[in-house]
Amino acid sequence: MTAPHDKLERRDEFLELAVRVRLEIEAELARTLREAASRAKDAGPRAHDVVDALAELAMRGGKRLRAVLVAAGYEACDGEGGASKVALAGVAVELLQAYLLIHDDWMDQDDVRRGGPSVHAHLRGVLGDARLGDVAAILAGDYGSALAQSTLLRVPLPAERVLEAARVFARIQEDVVTGQVLDVLDVGHASGPVEVKHDLKTGSYTVRGPLALGAALAGATAGARATLDRFAAPLGIAFQLRDDLLGTFGDAKATGKPTGTDLREGKRTALVEEAEKDRDASRLLARVLGVSDAPDDEVSALVARLVACGAKARVEARIDGLLADARATLDASGFTAHARAVLGGAAGALASRES
Amino acid sequence: MTAPHDKLERRDEFLELAVRVRLEIEAELARTLREAASRAKDAGPRAHDVVDALAELAMRGGKRLRAVLVAAGYEACDGEGGASKVALAGVAVELLQAYLLIHDDWMDQDDVRRGGPSVHAHLRGVLGDARLGDVAAILAGDYGSALAQSTLLRVPLPAERVLEAARVFARIQEDVVTGQVLDVLDVGHASGPVEVKHDLKTGSYTVRGPLALGAALAGATAGARATLDRFAAPLGIAFQLRDDLLGTFGDAKATGKPTGTDLREGKRTALVEEAEKDRDASRLLARVLGVSDAPDDEVSALVARLVACGAKARVEARIDGLLADARATLDASGFTAHARAVLGGAAGALASRES
Repeated sequence: MTAPHDKLERRDEFLELAVRVRLEIEAELARTLREAASRAKDAGPRAHDVVDALAELAMRGGKRLRAVLVAAGYEACDGEGGASKVALAGVAVELLQAYLLIHDDWMDQDDVRRGGPSVHAHLRGVLGDARLGDVAAILAGDYGSALAQSTLLRVPLPAERVLEAARVFARIQEDVVTGQVLDVLDVGHASGPVEVKHDLKTGSYTVRGPLALGAALAGATAGARATLDRFAAPLGIAFQLRDDLLGTFGDAKATGKPTGTDLREGKRTALVEEAEKDRDASRLLARVLGVSDAPDDEVSALVARLVACGAKARVEARIDGLLADARATLDASGFTAHARAVLGGAAGALASRES
Repeated sequence: MTAPHDKLERRDEFLELAVRVRLEIEAELARTLREAASRAKDAGPRAHDVVDALAELAMRGGKRLRAVLVAAGYEACDGEGGASKVALAGVAVELLQAYLLIHDDWMDQDDVRRGGPSVHAHLRGVLGDARLGDVAAILAGDYGSALAQSTLLRVPLPAERVLEAARVFARIQEDVVTGQVLDVLDVGHASGPVEVKHDLKTGSYTVRGPLALGAALAGATAGARATLDRFAAPLGIAFQLRDDLLGTFGDAKATGKPTGTDLREGKRTALVEEAEKDRDASRLLARVLGVSDAPDDEVSALVARLVACGAKARVEARIDGLLADARATLDASGFTAHARAVLGGAAGALASRES
């Protein structure tokens, strides 16, 4: 049993780390992007436009959750010098995310991201041409990918560890691209359990990957790395399930995306899978799912039915179960009290966020 | 002075290396892609389609010139164990090229590549939908990028060297994406000398980058690496100038692209820059350059005028000058006779190829 004050302390050690890491990440990310923009400016105004669009999106990003997880993985595995040592790895993960978001938003034709224009929407305006804007956005993503790699390779730790981290980084990319293929190319088709896709597309680069990067940089044992993977797997799925809930029930102001977007885009979320078990919800789904111009009142009726039929509650319960799995792995691990406090706090933050 | 039989031997040492490396690269590349396709198949049929499209393009690639240059850089810097040691780095460079070609072809809307369909054209057919085909092609490129990184990181050499090679690899990507921005987003606008763009877009990943990768993997001194860079810079530009000539005067069967493509696409090649110095050529250029449906007879008239006005000859002379610069750097270097033979042969092959 965990006493209430223990739980509070757990969360505090994580929050303390998170606040410290965020400040460092903002500063390092800004510096990295400023230097890249300066190199691009030397090449020409269009190159500067492209890097500037990448920088604008990357700096607009809120919680730096993935960078905090790199630090948590490093501290949990007793990395020397503390979290500051792996700040550049955190920056690399944020740049990786910017690259993936840019390509994803173009693929999904999402014009809004993080409360502002997505990169292709922004560059269409800058270049005054939709096609060229799209081309420039793909290049902004490609540039972000290159910059993410070079930033990771600058981490000031022994070569063996940085090399192992780079291998983890490449594997994350392979998984997340595979997950994106399942997500985008299987729209409207049932294609195996949604949680497999979630694990590949989101879990890989949101939870498992960042923790694994931190562990690799700490020179952790194979045993510790395997434990972290087991801890991360349910959390990655829980994170995406929470995302599914936020995409349908979330406050548009907090999430930065209009409510109902996921439904109109026809995303096969866990919520949709649950809703299909209900007759009324299925009937409404048929009129809204993947119908980009579905009227607001039909979307609202579907959203209400998702609550009434218990679909929302079942997804919430699944998140709770996944969180419990992660915590059980942690309790049975040989990690230090500090490590368990930080990772336990991270688990709570991942599963219960509101934006 | 170089006696004729010396020149002959030079070329032979390069060719011998090239033949050996190509065989190894084909085998390693096929194995790497086969394993990736097998992992993708486990994820789902669409993931397999995407990796299969990448593999099909990568295996269709002809000369493996970049992989041969990695080996040449390694041998020139006395890398132990010979070229076989860096075969995986050669595979990585071929995968990098596949990734870049896939994105480029989508950007340029080129439906033909290496004598077959480009990846977006192929995937449009497979998926029966143009938009989804384009999305899948961008993902095929992104997947190729991830696979290129993980392959390079498997090179069986000391961690410090592989890490340094990975840094070179990231820098190559930054340069080539910047060059692509200049190339695609400045269509129809004069935007500084065409050779700056050529150096970034093509030189970086065709000549300078592969040689630098080989040198980094050999643990070469800073001095040797700087010499290789100086040797590579003019050759990268010469390679692209040759490409410009082939894109206008080349045999469509050998190059795998229809004649006149570059002109109709409005590419600002060195040939176009030279042609603008001639009144008749300028007049014809205005009717053909960037006009995707320009009639064949107007394209033919322009092509003929490019010869008659001396534009073609001036570009040829520039290539010869660049080749001489590279050879002068080589002759003044402290490289071994074998290194000079291999690199000298590479220089000739780069500047005088016919496809």
